[in-house]
Amino acid sequence: MIIKEVAVENFTKIPDAIRAGASRIELCDNLAVGGTTVSKGVMAETQKYAGEHHVPVMAMIRPRGGNFVYTDTELKIMEADVFQAQELGVDGVVFGVLTKQGDLDTDALEMLIAAAGGMQITFHMAFDAIPQDKQATAIDWLANAGVDRILTHGGELSTPIAANYEHLKQTIAYANHRLIILPGGGITAQNLAEVTETLKVKEAHGTKIVGRL
Amino acid sequence: MIIKEVAVENFTKIPDAIRAGASRIELCDNLAVGGTTVSKGVMAETQKYAGEHHVPVMAMIRPRGGNFVYTDTELKIMEADVFQAQELGVDGVVFGVLTKQGDLDTDALEMLIAAAGGMQITFHMAFDAIPQDKQATAIDWLANAGVDRILTHGGELSTPIAANYEHLKQTIAYANHRLIILPGGGITAQNLAEVTETLKVKEAHGTKIVGRL
Repeated sequence: MIIKEVAVENFTKIPDAIRAGASRIELCDNLAVGGTTVSKGVMAETQKYAGEHHVPVMAMIRPRGGNFVYTDTELKIMEADVFQAQELGVDGVVFGVLTKQGDLDTDALEMLIAAAGGMQITFHMAFDAIPQDKQATAIDWLANAGVDRILTHGGELSTPIAANYEHLKQTIAYANHRLIILPGGGITAQNLAEVTETLKVKEAHGTKIVGRL
Repeated sequence: MIIKEVAVENFTKIPDAIRAGASRIELCDNLAVGGTTVSKGVMAETQKYAGEHHVPVMAMIRPRGGNFVYTDTELKIMEADVFQAQELGVDGVVFGVLTKQGDLDTDALEMLIAAAGGMQITFHMAFDAIPQDKQATAIDWLANAGVDRILTHGGELSTPIAANYEHLKQTIAYANHRLIILPGGGITAQNLAEVTETLKVKEAHGTKIVGRL
């Protein structure tokens, strides 16, 4: 059974997503910019509803669209939102922070990972903004830090995922089950089987992975 | 002095908006869908920063894009977010709820207005979805209920605001200072003077009203 993580904007479509077969929710606002953190009210009701249906919720922790290089104030916002997710009993959080040079911002990540203690953690597609020759080092660091998953398209989001199968396979082989490589970006109900069989993965991510909601 | 209310997406551009002359902030996420409620962290840091600069913050209370007819769960989300804004000392909240028939949903509004006790309240552009022959009744109800402002474009948002001057003038005359009619939608630094002089208003609203941020 493939774990289908569905990225959903706000609460309203959550019941539809679960009815359509979502095995996990990535909860966002503002998918137009790739996802931002929802309001407290949305987070609380989504966790309540999904929890009653035994579907885990991963809350996007992202204070704006755009790049993944954050100011101290933005990091403070993200930490407050991780604590908010903790308070509401959310299953996990999703974030990513880079330096201007495109390396992991390990100071910021240590702070957020500490705040997320006890919750699942996914490092999101900021991973794809790390130069490919630095990705192995990043995987090592994230695995050691206890991050559970890396969400990756395997290349520029404008490319079809099938164009990135080779790089994704290398990434999966390198991670070697130290953490889960979660493919995403352009995975739909139509190509889900092809993607998961080609990559031999048990989890996949998308907004249309259980069909159009 | 015209009060320039700037609609801003998340915290990051708030310092720029204030530096550029914003006299009030309408704080939103997801302007792509017309604005939704920000995360707790964004709300807290924005109120802190804007408060230090003596600029009031109005927090958008909207659980999704789309229409203004909400389920009970969505109303519960909105109430929780109004309480969140209260807790964080936010100056005001912005919301609007309609029935399927396009009337004010007075039950829902009474609940949200009660939750917003002590804060300023703006009824947002849901007003423009009320049929024009029912708008006078809506103004009466909102003024009696203690709502401070109605944000309105005076017609379909796809029309230039200048096309709606006559209807806006009628709306302003009918409101007769019982509450403030706040024009918005397509007001920029370029046409701000024309709009405020034509309508004889002291406040105006827009994303580009202090220039492009």
